[in-house]
Amino acid sequence: MRQFEGGVTAAAGFQAAGVEAAIKYKDRKDMALVYSEVPCVAAGTFTTNVVKAAPVVWDRKLVEESPFVQAVVVNSGIANACTGKQGMDCCRAESACAGELLGVPAEAVLVASTGVIGMQLPLERLQEGIRKLAAGKADGPEAGMDAARAIMTTDTVPKQTAVEFELGGRKVTIGGMCKGSGMIHPNMCTMLGFLTTDVKISKEMLQKALREDVVDSFNMVSVDGDTSTNDTLILMANGLGGNEEIVSPGEDYDTFCRALHMVTVSLARMMAGDGEGATALIEAKVVGAATKEDARTLAKSVICSSLTKAAVFGHDANFGRILCALGYSGAKFDPENLDLYFQGKSGSIHIFGGGVSCGYSEEEAARILSDPEVTILAHMHMGGEEAVAWGCDLSYDYVRINADYRS
Amino acid sequence: MRQFEGGVTAAAGFQAAGVEAAIKYKDRKDMALVYSEVPCVAAGTFTTNVVKAAPVVWDRKLVEESPFVQAVVVNSGIANACTGKQGMDCCRAESACAGELLGVPAEAVLVASTGVIGMQLPLERLQEGIRKLAAGKADGPEAGMDAARAIMTTDTVPKQTAVEFELGGRKVTIGGMCKGSGMIHPNMCTMLGFLTTDVKISKEMLQKALREDVVDSFNMVSVDGDTSTNDTLILMANGLGGNEEIVSPGEDYDTFCRALHMVTVSLARMMAGDGEGATALIEAKVVGAATKEDARTLAKSVICSSLTKAAVFGHDANFGRILCALGYSGAKFDPENLDLYFQGKSGSIHIFGGGVSCGYSEEEAARILSDPEVTILAHMHMGGEEAVAWGCDLSYDYVRINADYRS
Repeated sequence: MRQFEGGVTAAAGFQAAGVEAAIKYKDRKDMALVYSEVPCVAAGTFTTNVVKAAPVVWDRKLVEESPFVQAVVVNSGIANACTGKQGMDCCRAESACAGELLGVPAEAVLVASTGVIGMQLPLERLQEGIRKLAAGKADGPEAGMDAARAIMTTDTVPKQTAVEFELGGRKVTIGGMCKGSGMIHPNMCTMLGFLTTDVKISKEMLQKALREDVVDSFNMVSVDGDTSTNDTLILMANGLGGNEEIVSPGEDYDTFCRALHMVTVSLARMMAGDGEGATALIEAKVVGAATKEDARTLAKSVICSSLTKAAVFGHDANFGRILCALGYSGAKFDPENLDLYFQGKSGSIHIFGGGVSCGYSEEEAARILSDPEVTILAHMHMGGEEAVAWGCDLSYDYVRINADYRS
Repeated sequence: MRQFEGGVTAAAGFQAAGVEAAIKYKDRKDMALVYSEVPCVAAGTFTTNVVKAAPVVWDRKLVEESPFVQAVVVNSGIANACTGKQGMDCCRAESACAGELLGVPAEAVLVASTGVIGMQLPLERLQEGIRKLAAGKADGPEAGMDAARAIMTTDTVPKQTAVEFELGGRKVTIGGMCKGSGMIHPNMCTMLGFLTTDVKISKEMLQKALREDVVDSFNMVSVDGDTSTNDTLILMANGLGGNEEIVSPGEDYDTFCRALHMVTVSLARMMAGDGEGATALIEAKVVGAATKEDARTLAKSVICSSLTKAAVFGHDANFGRILCALGYSGAKFDPENLDLYFQGKSGSIHIFGGGVSCGYSEEEAARILSDPEVTILAHMHMGGEEAVAWGCDLSYDYVRINADYRS
């Protein structure tokens, strides 16, 4: 397996575009298109929030009911959430407009939105944007990067990656892009993500692979504990890779899942590291947990702790906050029999064990906590299960960004 | 019922003291004593965190097993949490020292600590502090205020109140003090709180009253979602009020519970409003919920949302974040049939209804959100239950305080 720079256009037969449509932002790309030259089977996972944005309702229906999809239209700036009937009408109009221009059925066009909740989308500007997207779509890495830039909101960098691997002697690819970076919390995919592959695979196996993957990838990311109304992860497979179709579990399916996980974990880490205001990616790794669910719960609890996040921002080895977060997670363990380590590029340090502080060097701990990627490793000594979660520190900029998001 | 300025010394027969003991802070009071001239029955509720500070373990045992208690010794600065056997030995030594000096059994002395996790307490300075407390204890409001000041950590103001009421023609009183102000989250009492009363009541009824009260008072407060290792709420009743002893449910018990709730809700609001870095108290009021538990869950979810908190700090009427927080709470409701209002001293404004924005004035909304106390009112139209939760906004100062707490 080879991971490389690339995104939604990395797999055979996929095109993309990113254009300026002035939906809400000025002077930047704010609409994206992902398009397959041939029909795709599609899988999707969506927000668990009771308040679902109109595109989430629309896409879930299409993914469930349409045998094939062929395009996704995305806008940033306005989320089309809490917009009532007008919001649903807008989704329908977007799909119809794009379907007509792309020469595919309206039911083959997914839509997605991200941005401010409660505002209506400007339909005419959307339609004008769709016209530009359809006219400008292209294959190649530049088009993929344009799309990755267009879906950003408070993200500071575009996020994409791709993996090439072999199935039955045929070279195949999975690529993808996603955007964060606030209102991000484990409970479904917590963001917008679009994955494309030329692997030939049945819709059932595609959905199974995606559903099982997110539990240990996107669902293990938290920036701020707020599960968005718009979380959407779409995986489209157009079958142009020429492998024997994957229709049941087996070696090919496992290979596909490994490649998929490489893409999703990379994107999940990018999203956490580019959380609003973040200066560091925090990785919480829990080993020796009694159950897999305990391991996930413990790792997520550390990632979500505001006090732990603020301590990492201050490069302060305040391990009590981590113990506290493990303790209120709901998982059972013995605090007297727990080992805690900080790890970074600058080294590894044993912080806590046998129920007390290890008498470590504060300078060394502060140096590790100054790394751009910090791992908090907790060995629970309760069993053999492990899990990893990703988050970021809590900085002044998170407050600045969110105290003034709409202006 | 008459609420008045007063604290742990408001009820008959209670004395208090606050002294400088240099436990960790310099040049400020950091140890407190609450003492009853006669033995008390005591009730307590404690943190649900798996990682429990030594004083929590110690006090829970005493409250359960000792028929009477007569004093509480508190220090701020160091939490005596994650301190192993040495931490438990320290609790035992504190109780023994105070018992000897106060002439009461060691098992009648509760202890409590708040501050940095993972550091050992300096036992000699503690014992010197206890000597000063025992020598300086006094009745009257000044002594109560000294104690309320001594238990503060990042609190900016001392927190205390008292309520006078009648039981069977006898004037009786409940008073109390508490401290926040970070690591505050609903799951038991989320702070240190000490309540005293001269009401004559059995230990069983006292424990029942306290346990049932916190569900809608201290457990409805959140500052940062972090449930502390040290949360402790103690209620001591010395029976000097001369009322007929409350030994079963009935009118007197109900009156007692109403007075208790007036004290606990006042303290809970003070704690929320003085959350770390807070510029505003946020009250989330949910009405028309299907069940009481739904109402509590929805109200807490709004209070805990970092994005909602940051929006209030920015005086930004970003109601989408509130809908989002209601939506991921876990409670079921229909977003199309929900009314949302902002209320403050400056007025009341209908923000959202019928699934869409109400087209309110942004200026008016910003004015309300600039009030020091902001109420977010959500009518769910699902039933007749309601609940209130209290929190605060998320400011730059929260980050500043917590990025640098130990230095």
